[in-house]
Amino acid sequence: MRLFNTAIFSAAAMLLASAALAITPAEQAANEKALDAGISTAEQMAWLKQMTSAPNHVGSPHNRENAEFILAQFKAWGWDAKIETFDVLYPTPLRTALEITGANPVTLGGQEPGIPEDATSNQLAGALPPYVAFGADGDVTADVVYVNYGLPADYEALARRGISVKGKIALARYGAGWRGLKPKLAQEQGAVGALIYSDPAQDGYGTGESYPNGGARPDAGVQRGSVADMTLFPGDPLTPGYGAVKGAKRLDRRDAPTIMKIPTLPISYGDAMKIFKAMGGPLAPASFKGGLPFAYRLGGADAIKLRLMVESEWSLKPANNVIAMLKGKDRPDEWVVRGNHFDGWVFGAADPLSGEVALLSEAKALGALAKTGWRPSRTIVYASWDAEEPMLLGSTEWAEHHGKELQAKAIAYINTDGNGRGFLGAQGSHQLQRLVNQVAADVTDPQTGVSVLARQRARARVDAYEGSAPVADSTLVAAEAGGDMPIGALGSGSDYSAFIQHLGIPSLNIGFGGEGESAGSYHSIYDSYDHFVRFDDPGLAYGGALAKTTGRLVLRLADADTPALRFTDLAATVRGYLAEVRTLVSTRQRQDGKRAALIAAGSHKLAGDPTEPFAAPEAVSATPMIELAALENAVSRLETSARDYDAAFTAKGSTLAPAARARLNKTLLGIDQELLIPEGLPGRPWYKHALYAPGRFTGYGAKTLPGVREAIEERRFADANLYATRTAAALDRFSARLEAASAILGGK
Amino acid sequence: MRLFNTAIFSAAAMLLASAALAITPAEQAANEKALDAGISTAEQMAWLKQMTSAPNHVGSPHNRENAEFILAQFKAWGWDAKIETFDVLYPTPLRTALEITGANPVTLGGQEPGIPEDATSNQLAGALPPYVAFGADGDVTADVVYVNYGLPADYEALARRGISVKGKIALARYGAGWRGLKPKLAQEQGAVGALIYSDPAQDGYGTGESYPNGGARPDAGVQRGSVADMTLFPGDPLTPGYGAVKGAKRLDRRDAPTIMKIPTLPISYGDAMKIFKAMGGPLAPASFKGGLPFAYRLGGADAIKLRLMVESEWSLKPANNVIAMLKGKDRPDEWVVRGNHFDGWVFGAADPLSGEVALLSEAKALGALAKTGWRPSRTIVYASWDAEEPMLLGSTEWAEHHGKELQAKAIAYINTDGNGRGFLGAQGSHQLQRLVNQVAADVTDPQTGVSVLARQRARARVDAYEGSAPVADSTLVAAEAGGDMPIGALGSGSDYSAFIQHLGIPSLNIGFGGEGESAGSYHSIYDSYDHFVRFDDPGLAYGGALAKTTGRLVLRLADADTPALRFTDLAATVRGYLAEVRTLVSTRQRQDGKRAALIAAGSHKLAGDPTEPFAAPEAVSATPMIELAALENAVSRLETSARDYDAAFTAKGSTLAPAARARLNKTLLGIDQELLIPEGLPGRPWYKHALYAPGRFTGYGAKTLPGVREAIEERRFADANLYATRTAAALDRFSARLEAASAILGGK
Repeated sequence: MRLFNTAIFSAAAMLLASAALAITPAEQAANEKALDAGISTAEQMAWLKQMTSAPNHVGSPHNRENAEFILAQFKAWGWDAKIETFDVLYPTPLRTALEITGANPVTLGGQEPGIPEDATSNQLAGALPPYVAFGADGDVTADVVYVNYGLPADYEALARRGISVKGKIALARYGAGWRGLKPKLAQEQGAVGALIYSDPAQDGYGTGESYPNGGARPDAGVQRGSVADMTLFPGDPLTPGYGAVKGAKRLDRRDAPTIMKIPTLPISYGDAMKIFKAMGGPLAPASFKGGLPFAYRLGGADAIKLRLMVESEWSLKPANNVIAMLKGKDRPDEWVVRGNHFDGWVFGAADPLSGEVALLSEAKALGALAKTGWRPSRTIVYASWDAEEPMLLGSTEWAEHHGKELQAKAIAYINTDGNGRGFLGAQGSHQLQRLVNQVAADVTDPQTGVSVLARQRARARVDAYEGSAPVADSTLVAAEAGGDMPIGALGSGSDYSAFIQHLGIPSLNIGFGGEGESAGSYHSIYDSYDHFVRFDDPGLAYGGALAKTTGRLVLRLADADTPALRFTDLAATVRGYLAEVRTLVSTRQRQDGKRAALIAAGSHKLAGDPTEPFAAPEAVSATPMIELAALENAVSRLETSARDYDAAFTAKGSTLAPAARARLNKTLLGIDQELLIPEGLPGRPWYKHALYAPGRFTGYGAKTLPGVREAIEERRFADANLYATRTAAALDRFSARLEAASAILGGK
Repeated sequence: MRLFNTAIFSAAAMLLASAALAITPAEQAANEKALDAGISTAEQMAWLKQMTSAPNHVGSPHNRENAEFILAQFKAWGWDAKIETFDVLYPTPLRTALEITGANPVTLGGQEPGIPEDATSNQLAGALPPYVAFGADGDVTADVVYVNYGLPADYEALARRGISVKGKIALARYGAGWRGLKPKLAQEQGAVGALIYSDPAQDGYGTGESYPNGGARPDAGVQRGSVADMTLFPGDPLTPGYGAVKGAKRLDRRDAPTIMKIPTLPISYGDAMKIFKAMGGPLAPASFKGGLPFAYRLGGADAIKLRLMVESEWSLKPANNVIAMLKGKDRPDEWVVRGNHFDGWVFGAADPLSGEVALLSEAKALGALAKTGWRPSRTIVYASWDAEEPMLLGSTEWAEHHGKELQAKAIAYINTDGNGRGFLGAQGSHQLQRLVNQVAADVTDPQTGVSVLARQRARARVDAYEGSAPVADSTLVAAEAGGDMPIGALGSGSDYSAFIQHLGIPSLNIGFGGEGESAGSYHSIYDSYDHFVRFDDPGLAYGGALAKTTGRLVLRLADADTPALRFTDLAATVRGYLAEVRTLVSTRQRQDGKRAALIAAGSHKLAGDPTEPFAAPEAVSATPMIELAALENAVSRLETSARDYDAAFTAKGSTLAPAARARLNKTLLGIDQELLIPEGLPGRPWYKHALYAPGRFTGYGAKTLPGVREAIEERRFADANLYATRTAAALDRFSARLEAASAILGGK
């Protein structure tokens, strides 16, 4: 591993340092050198081995042990640390059954088998069997329909073939949309139960050699997970919007809207094959085909009866967040928050502990630095979250409980959730894009010796040119010109959700990936130390790189006189989102007319094979024009105010008098809360951010300008007009704050 | 089946009739009604059953019986018919062996197994085992390398991973390029043998249920075929360019350039799986992955030795073409030629006999019409070709032998080669595009009751709108506006090749497809009557539609005073080809520069996974500007002369005095021979057409403006400039002829 060389720290860091650091560039460089020196991948490996040595799901003995271990480490490193517990609803299976019934019943499901090459896979005492958290209890026996990914387009394709899941069990494959959408849409379609299997095309032999010969998912591997309706709100289903502390008012479980109504189980492709081979029905359309070695059929022919039974234990369980602080010497009431969760589905090596050990490395290095006399200018908060897997319970309850304090103090939240190998990935609030690029330029890729930014750029250029992966034009332009690599937008699926989307705290999610094979062990018993060090990140080389990356982000945010934000990046990104929304409207208008004409002409019938049952799609009302003028004006104002602020900050940001500095920082602190829409998004008021949200029909995947974009996609045109106005108002409030900040800097 | 209704025959036919028919529109309509009435799908089924009742490959007893049967039918129907025999080289296997050697050898290969559901599959006496014609004899034992489709890009991908087939056996899958390219490129790369297997993603369970439950290829199904180097020339390898008559000079077999140099066998995916599972090696890149249920590996690790042995019988065999004529009453020395072959690989139901029985239907109907007193204005020649499967032997030798007479007399050649179900497909000389569309408007689709043209248009519109298949802009525009549907360009793979590409006779290839499942039985023992009537074209409904389509093409060409050609369609098509070539040049120039920059920056290495062996591609010399001005001018002249001719023909074509008519027809007869480049295409002088050729690296797939386009693709820039000039000269000769024809019509 190469260490950071103070003699060649980048010009970008120099510029940043000279512009806004509370400390000199040389001090900053020395601190980052100390950070790097304090990070030991050997230590990460030892921590990872210990923390993954037993099942560590919420409420398990080893989960508690891990919390105590983390707490003890932080304390030993000089942090002010404690465990903060919330009492959250967390169902675990008492009994499950899955069986093809009949004269010769076939029993399916049950725990995944251990293998000799994976030590912990044979130590399953106390491990949970494959299940999904927050599916319903139930015992149903019915025919099966294969619904592909189980997303709206799949049900439309089935309807055009005259097939319904009403009264049947929906068999969906993982992929394309978030897990929880599959039982949710199945129950909306009238299914009485749901199964979700891991098709080998997605993360099995279609992607590489199966474990233990490679990292891909074996035939008996199953993906556990939560199916609580994250698109409504994450966190404890019984305490929406407030902390699940002792004595808090709790919904009756039957009234909790994020809990599913039908029993659901995840299964392996080995089990799915047995169901496919028995269930018959018409041939599936091309888009439904996965990697199994037969012609996929749709079922629904009443050829089999499948029994699906789930019975759970529904008591409250403790979510033990470990919260540690290093108090700021200058600005103790401005916080930089950094988090990763430590609960896993079974052993949780890749997800989440590979990220948690990076966080521990940073904490140890910062603790050591503090012992040399350094203290951060701002307060640094390191959070090790519990109960992320069931639906971000630990982080959400903590963020809800401390919401007012966080909104008053937190300048940023930096999340990781495990780690992989290869290329830096970053998503988040776009005024932090510049900072991420500056850090990426200063961290060395452990495999190639160039900066992680140089590898990102090379990948984008080669992908674009060789056609190996789609690359957005803006990304390619940046890669070609040596400009900043764009960061993505945040959807959901990890602990940043409450911070950015509910509280309006600027957030980042960071991780390496693209080369390891952790997808094949995801949420299974094979997500183990053995799998991780063989196939995901041998030697935890990227565990080291991650700690250096996130550690630098924390240090630079904590010690800058004024946080290094570049609002022109945010404005340009929002301009791009608005252009996408305009294109969406015009595309929909053209498509609506086209489809209506084709339906009127009977073209679908003529274009199809008359020997196969197939109905034309239903005609829809035409997409009208949406009133986007106010939003357009608001984006223009944002562009102007961002340009003025960035120019003024570049000119004056490093030379501000203390009183003006204090006023500037106060003006910027909480500025992202102006982007919250007080009423929240349509039908889901917990989500308030005007720019970013998890998609109602994508889940983890982000929707940007969500109030407007999703309303158009879902043909809620009144909502589209209303949220165009509300989004414009949010942007105008934000611009006004930015203009006030510029005035402090003496800018326009 | 709906019959043609004389009261509503289309306005297009009316226009055509009024412009150029030797007979009145009413007579023409009556003839077409009689054609339709004479076509019996029941009869087609009976002929098909009889002709597919035993193996009928070249030289087999039943092949001879089929020739005699066809001859007898034509004679009975009043045609002047005879068998015209050529003596062609046609190797058949004496012995083949395929074995994974070692202590426990695994025997592979051999004949495909019969199944109870398919009657003839259990009557294999005299059937040839799976083999490829014109592979070399040999006996090699070597390690195996999986080469994906075995095309140039695949060998580049292997080279970047440090893998070579030198001294090894190349295992290729069918698909992406023509069969014969696979052993050809393998031997060029130094392989000692080649295997070609049918991956289930291409025509097995990835496309539907396997036979006999569906029509897709079963695990033991094998695709036979020829691997003679068609891209050099088709026909008898020993008599290039002249007829293989008795006593003709013949090359020594060892000097015949189209015969492969390495032993090659086709195998089933059942056998391929056994090789894959044993051979090991590094993981294959994503583009190499097919539908088999494991992670594809590349082999080359010396984990196995495979023995591959082929020993053939190399004697000359008779190719018995059945040639039948109906002599023209007005213009006996102008011929309309129509053909389909009758030899199969085993039983040959779909390929070729489903097309041959349509041809027989037409011949019977035309014979019956002749007995009522009608005689065609021009001579009609119906050819039933033998020995097409080994490499277009029967048709090529006949066309070469009668080359001068055909160039003097043939106004068009209309080919079919089997038939399927669904949508009309047509490729050929673009001055015939209008005629094809007029006929398509007048033939009723048997499944939907609309015209086959209306179904084509509906399919293009729905595909383009719903994204179900790529649709060229020009096709969509035509479909939307009710314009003519474009016809494709002819590559090779069937009997039109000598006619269009060697002799310059305007040609068409016609067939229905898109809905049946004949791909799964292609060139296997399962291409049987049972398969065909269950899964390909039940009741031969489209056999009837094909006979009505091609019968109309023949009748309208034979009875028109002047053939109905529209040269503006040809000019517009060539203009499009030239635009593609210009885009190719600019794209290559951009790509060359891009690749050089990425190689110089070492980006490929940074973008790849350092744990996998991977070398950057090799830098290439930059693509220069190509001199296209003369070609551009020639296309402009063609556009003008075509526009003038079409206008003049529309104005005066129906009212020409007999002497002028004779001069016009003489001027048009053979006009396409002006499009021949006397020197032929670079490195393959047999192919002379300036506009259409089978691609050197696509095979069946056409390359247009081939002398220029392929030279640019293959970086032969001197050839590109030379053939731009030669192509321009050919177009200029063609335009001059067209201008002379316009003058006769009194046009500009």
